[in-house]
Amino acid sequence: MDDVIVDATGQFINYYEKEFGIRVERDTLNHHEEGQGFPGNYDIIQQFPFRESFFLTMQPNEGSPMVIEQLNKKYDLFIVSAAMEFPQSLPEKLKWLKEYLPFLTWKQIVFCGSKTVVHGDYMIDDLAYNLEGFNGEKFLFTAPHNLHLQQFNRLNNWTEVATRFL
Amino acid sequence: MDDVIVDATGQFINYYEKEFGIRVERDTLNHHEEGQGFPGNYDIIQQFPFRESFFLTMQPNEGSPMVIEQLNKKYDLFIVSAAMEFPQSLPEKLKWLKEYLPFLTWKQIVFCGSKTVVHGDYMIDDLAYNLEGFNGEKFLFTAPHNLHLQQFNRLNNWTEVATRFL
Repeated sequence: MDDVIVDATGQFINYYEKEFGIRVERDTLNHHEEGQGFPGNYDIIQQFPFRESFFLTMQPNEGSPMVIEQLNKKYDLFIVSAAMEFPQSLPEKLKWLKEYLPFLTWKQIVFCGSKTVVHGDYMIDDLAYNLEGFNGEKFLFTAPHNLHLQQFNRLNNWTEVATRFL
Repeated sequence: MDDVIVDATGQFINYYEKEFGIRVERDTLNHHEEGQGFPGNYDIIQQFPFRESFFLTMQPNEGSPMVIEQLNKKYDLFIVSAAMEFPQSLPEKLKWLKEYLPFLTWKQIVFCGSKTVVHGDYMIDDLAYNLEGFNGEKFLFTAPHNLHLQQFNRLNNWTEVATRFL
């Protein structure tokens, strides 16, 4: 979900601005790990995600709900989110999915820790360690924290997902 | 989790007794679907699991925490629970796991709808439809609602799990 279906980076930028009064440009986060690259040395990834509504109020990445709705007609689609690291995110992520992707059923949702236990034909993910253990075809969804990775086929946005899969 | 790691049947019996004043013998539930076989025609499976603490206060099946602790030293172990059908169960199941299986990390927990997305070497489950789509070796964990099934190797209790896997 984060930085693939939803704009997690944008949420960090918003929360950082609310907290510190500085609006960080998205490009300045390029090549930094998630939650890194912001002015100061605050460990925001250990703070913001634990606040109420952090996951609930994320905005979808452009085009994601519409493309996912179409994918869902053509494929056996699963939303696999490594949500266990932030257990309080579980009900918020579930609510988010119900609101933005109401055509999905509960059978299609997987909240896990490690994604190594999941298999399938295709995986679209923003993190190398999720893709590495996967048995099927792997696609890296471009995000500021993964621009340096060379070893995967890329999908840069949801238009490219649609072009590849629809 | 339900009727493998935890005694979900016992929880239904307890809730039924609290609600209707009748203590149902476990054996009378044999060969009935989950939540069926109780006197009257109440749809308890659509009621009790939605009550607060239903999942949190379940008792472990005899020996399960101890055997799982040993399995965890020998195998890459994942707890895969079809929890999405009862979304309010997610935080309760997570709390339960932390209390009874504190040696597990969040990376080993998977809450899903359909288990078809999960793969591995072995699966222990009480439901035929979870085992059927699995790629590895399948074991049916005996429960009142699955006594009629013939097509799987069985594990009748956690002593048998230990004997087979440890």
